[in-house]
Amino acid sequence: MSERAVGVFDSGVGGLTVLRALRHCLPDEDLVYLGDTARVPYGTKSAPTVRRYAVEAAHFLMEQRVKLIVVACNTASAVALEYLAERFPVPVVGVIEPGARRALEVSQQGRIGVIGTEGTVRSQAYEKAIRQGRADVSISAAACPLFVPLAEEGWADHEIARIAAQEYLAPLLSQGIDTLVLGCTHYPLLKKTLQKVAGSSVKLIDSAEETAKTVATLLQRDDLRRRQPSQEPPRFFVTDIPDRFEKVGGAFLGDTLDRVTTISLD
Amino acid sequence: MSERAVGVFDSGVGGLTVLRALRHCLPDEDLVYLGDTARVPYGTKSAPTVRRYAVEAAHFLMEQRVKLIVVACNTASAVALEYLAERFPVPVVGVIEPGARRALEVSQQGRIGVIGTEGTVRSQAYEKAIRQGRADVSISAAACPLFVPLAEEGWADHEIARIAAQEYLAPLLSQGIDTLVLGCTHYPLLKKTLQKVAGSSVKLIDSAEETAKTVATLLQRDDLRRRQPSQEPPRFFVTDIPDRFEKVGGAFLGDTLDRVTTISLD
Repeated sequence: MSERAVGVFDSGVGGLTVLRALRHCLPDEDLVYLGDTARVPYGTKSAPTVRRYAVEAAHFLMEQRVKLIVVACNTASAVALEYLAERFPVPVVGVIEPGARRALEVSQQGRIGVIGTEGTVRSQAYEKAIRQGRADVSISAAACPLFVPLAEEGWADHEIARIAAQEYLAPLLSQGIDTLVLGCTHYPLLKKTLQKVAGSSVKLIDSAEETAKTVATLLQRDDLRRRQPSQEPPRFFVTDIPDRFEKVGGAFLGDTLDRVTTISLD
Repeated sequence: MSERAVGVFDSGVGGLTVLRALRHCLPDEDLVYLGDTARVPYGTKSAPTVRRYAVEAAHFLMEQRVKLIVVACNTASAVALEYLAERFPVPVVGVIEPGARRALEVSQQGRIGVIGTEGTVRSQAYEKAIRQGRADVSISAAACPLFVPLAEEGWADHEIARIAAQEYLAPLLSQGIDTLVLGCTHYPLLKKTLQKVAGSSVKLIDSAEETAKTVATLLQRDDLRRRQPSQEPPRFFVTDIPDRFEKVGGAFLGDTLDRVTTISLD
């Protein structure tokens, strides 16, 4: 069992920021990544639809004989994590709980902002996870639909990104937040712009690294760490042809993308 | 046969600008609209994937016993129109050919710009359609991925839209275009901003109205016009839950949306 791969899925390229953190944190593990690029994005879609897509993705990863599933998509983590955990016989790790826990660790005044897709914000999953850790915090959230296309367009440092960030963050900053959770795997690419707009007193939380740490802890606890370092580079699967994934994904992975195979989920 | 409805499909809400033109141009006809909101957008996806989705949408419309199918999505028109026309026993009308024809009618100097999604621009479908009408024209094209989220966010007249338009249109304007084809059904919402950035000497072409005229001509030619005016308002079908479609779609239809039913295509 321990020699099996860790499976990671996302709606598209965003989850590659999580894969990157996993490679860094767990260099010995074998990794399989699935991007549902034929149906991306999940962030504007309803909970039942995202749940259906997540189940199909998890089934595919199980067919790849993975030992653990990482839901590297905030929207899917928000609406489908428990649902998956109940239905699949391996540990299922999302990106919300690790990010929420980290936010509580670094926030000094307990004034936390959360930004994400419409689906993630509507689900209030971060609010629930944060309040489970500590009840007396103030949380404000905002959906930022323009950030994903800005990141994919390579305009993360463009004036447009700055103005959009000012627009989206204004209501959070007026609440005096001291911590800002980047509740979408695309947003780390906008970190520089977001930090400038939010000011240096606001700490930004990137869930990717925290999620990788959680995975490491779980593998250790269940004695699932590989005995021998994997000699295999990560394998990538997508549901649309790989051209765009390969072109856009490099910036998210911080590496060139190869070995990308197209599969069908529906 | 003539009493049957006209079927319209799009990846989401954008095609509602075409439905609006159809209602205006053909007030007596019964209309059925399908938005594939569970898999929107088509613009970033590959031709084979969009073709598969288009066939599923057309099958659904045929089950609704339509007499004609309008592909109210530029990306699907660009990559799937001939494919559908060969496979379905009713006339299939896209939005590319009507827009291309109109561009040739209004362009004085034959310098035409085309803007659209990545998929539409990559397909070069407008170039082919325009050159079929007249070979000695200069055509320049640009993909504008930010325009769809800007239109859906209600930011069509925001400073961000203006800067994005300046950025995207600069290479076309430097070619001295006198006509600009809005090759995506979302773009008519940005008309004011685009006209300002392009300048008053550039004529904007909105395919929706031209497409409605083509449908009217075809129904007349094949003796498919209704004998009696329809008493029924348009019926709407979507593949995700209707909340977001109803909320965002009103601005595209120019009317409130009701009678929206969720169906499954995959």
